[in-house]
Amino acid sequence: MSEQGRPNVTVLGLGRMGTPIAAAFLRAGYPTTVWNRTTGKADGLVAQGAVHAATPAEAVAASPLVVVPLLDYDAVRRVLGPAASALSGRVLVNLANGAPEQARELASWATDHGADYLDGAMMALPQTVATPEGFFLYSGSERAFTTYRAELDVMASSHYFGADPGLAEIHDLALLGTGYAALTGFLHAAALLDALGTAPADFAPLASRWLTGMAQFLPELAREAGARAYDGGVSTVDLNRVAVDNLVRISRANGVGGDVHEPLRALLDRRSADGHGEESFSSVFELLRPRDAGQR
Amino acid sequence: MSEQGRPNVTVLGLGRMGTPIAAAFLRAGYPTTVWNRTTGKADGLVAQGAVHAATPAEAVAASPLVVVPLLDYDAVRRVLGPAASALSGRVLVNLANGAPEQARELASWATDHGADYLDGAMMALPQTVATPEGFFLYSGSERAFTTYRAELDVMASSHYFGADPGLAEIHDLALLGTGYAALTGFLHAAALLDALGTAPADFAPLASRWLTGMAQFLPELAREAGARAYDGGVSTVDLNRVAVDNLVRISRANGVGGDVHEPLRALLDRRSADGHGEESFSSVFELLRPRDAGQR
Ligand SMILES: NC(=O)c1ccc[n+]([C@@H]2O[C@H](COP(=O)([O-])OP(=O)(O)OC[C@H]3O[C@@H](n4cnc5c(N)ncnc54)[C@H](OP(=O)(O)O)[C@@H]3O)[C@@H](O)[C@H]2O)c1
Ligand SMILES: NC(=O)c1ccc[n+]([C@@H]2O[C@H](COP(=O)([O-])OP(=O)(O)OC[C@H]3O[C@@H](n4cnc5c(N)ncnc54)[C@H](OP(=O)(O)O)[C@@H]3O)[C@@H](O)[C@H]2O)c1
Repeated sequence: MSEQGRPNVTVLGLGRMGTPIAAAFLRAGYPTTVWNRTTGKADGLVAQGAVHAATPAEAVAASPLVVVPLLDYDAVRRVLGPAASALSGRVLVNLANGAPEQARELASWATDHGADYLDGAMMALPQTVATPEGFFLYSGSERAFTTYRAELDVMASSHYFGADPGLAEIHDLALLGTGYAALTGFLHAAALLDALGTAPADFAPLASRWLTGMAQFLPELAREAGARAYDGGVSTVDLNRVAVDNLVRISRANGVGGDVHEPLRALLDRRSADGHGEESFSSVFELLRPRDAGQR
Repeated sequence: MSEQGRPNVTVLGLGRMGTPIAAAFLRAGYPTTVWNRTTGKADGLVAQGAVHAATPAEAVAASPLVVVPLLDYDAVRRVLGPAASALSGRVLVNLANGAPEQARELASWATDHGADYLDGAMMALPQTVATPEGFFLYSGSERAFTTYRAELDVMASSHYFGADPGLAEIHDLALLGTGYAALTGFLHAAALLDALGTAPADFAPLASRWLTGMAQFLPELAREAGARAYDGGVSTVDLNRVAVDNLVRISRANGVGGDVHEPLRALLDRRSADGHGEESFSSVFELLRPRDAGQR
């Protein structure tokens, strides 16, 4: 414990994300122990006051809270394997990206060694760590999350989703999926306009503005989807079907590839054929959600 | 002309969009003439100083600039048909949504009657007309756009794309497509999380935040796509392929329908198979853009 009652924190892995994370703990006044495979990466942090541990085991032993922003689950296993006996009584926060099963397996391995396990996913870039733009997702031990909430909030605002350690990775994938869809839609539209004389760089500011507006619209979509009630809107399935059809037709006529909008077109066609053409666009949610899920 | 040198402006069609448009011209000090099929909708605007024309022909005759925010091209034809002889020497700004061919046909009809034609698309909602959030797209007569730029800017910031009257509708579809893709990705992700215990309303604020970040990222994607140069990024095709695969697999395992990410998955697989796995995500643009388009 430091004089101000702040616990020692260990950061294992000083890559693009680990370095600003360790720096954030130091700035926030936490005694911070660091370790990295390539040792030179610790130098700047040591100059800021970090303690450089000689081995992962020594680094784990130094703190009740061990934060691990390594490359992937494989790297985490390699680094923590030889340090397993030091894990007992620690809270282990894994921040490597991966699949939910990997999080569950690592959680049970860590728990077997007496650690309390939190899985995390960083919705941030190196430069948005410890800024209002970044946010981190967590799942696993609720006790660990509650106990170290203040420390986790040093890295980014923290969101906890439940005891299943896989939930942080799943929420990460859900956010990535939302983003991928947007970027794919943008690249498709940019390809069409590029063929017609508007360069992607000229389209991007408008698309950015439009997408920012769409982002503000998500809570309304979520309200409709959550309530399974789709009759409030002016933006109906049939209205948007016409626009999607026009877009698909014109894209093909101009040689744009990818069939990016085919899934949406199929969803809108099916909603319309099933007699829901006058419902709000968001009613395609009925064809996406698992058949047996109830109302939320 | 008004005392301040402002030309008379006519607004034909006082629906959800037409009403705030006419109000904006009045607020900006333009002598404004209005007409609407259902006459009662003009009353509020007359109280604010608008002149209520008895017929579309009278309304067209009243101003050098005629702005038409009617429902669709069909409504525009019905309303303007009997007023065709009044069009000569006017600038006609059609703001109804439709397909590019419809814009081209209406342009040639209007030109045949001696009007200068501008096609417009409103990237706005009724409440964002004449606010910094709304923006309107234009194509068609460049002379009309240049001459009445100040008046067009009263409604929203104005973007001009070229002489082909269809270009405003195509840009509208391109923006809608970008937005549709994002909303579809969101609803798909929300369906997955909903099945796992996170309600759409709890996911929406995070997704909104993430999508806003993605919107800021579009200019970088556009730079890569515009230059056909994809080797700068850390977010590679192969890295994102893993995430998309995980997302697709987990979505299916949880009964989520729609196959929303199949087109992206196919694009990433093909890029990877073609030896471009280490290029930036944006390199899927190479599979979207028409084969014969050059660099911009
Ligand atoms: N960068 C981003 O923008 C970003 C954003 C959100 C999430 N993430 C996720 O955050 C995690 C870390 O990403 P990053 O960008 O910080 O990665 P990075 O810059 O490549 O750093 C990787 C870290 O892992 C270590 N490492 C890799 N393989 C190892 C092994 N076999 N044994 C021991 N150490 C090993 C590296 O050590 P050396 O220094 O010795 O190589 C380094 O400390 C990843 O899961 C990534 O998906 C990244
Ligand atoms: N609302 C939005 O958020 C929004 C946003 C962007 C773009 N747009 C586009 O803007 C355009 C106008 O939309 P809006 O929301 O203002 O529509 P709206 O509220 O339904 O108003 C439609 C207007 O068209 C008139 N009209 C319809 N059919 C007619 C006919 N056969 N003959 C004469 N007049 C006819 C209506 O007259 P009556 O009053 O007599 O019915 C009314 O003035 C559409 O192309 C829409 O796609 C709308």
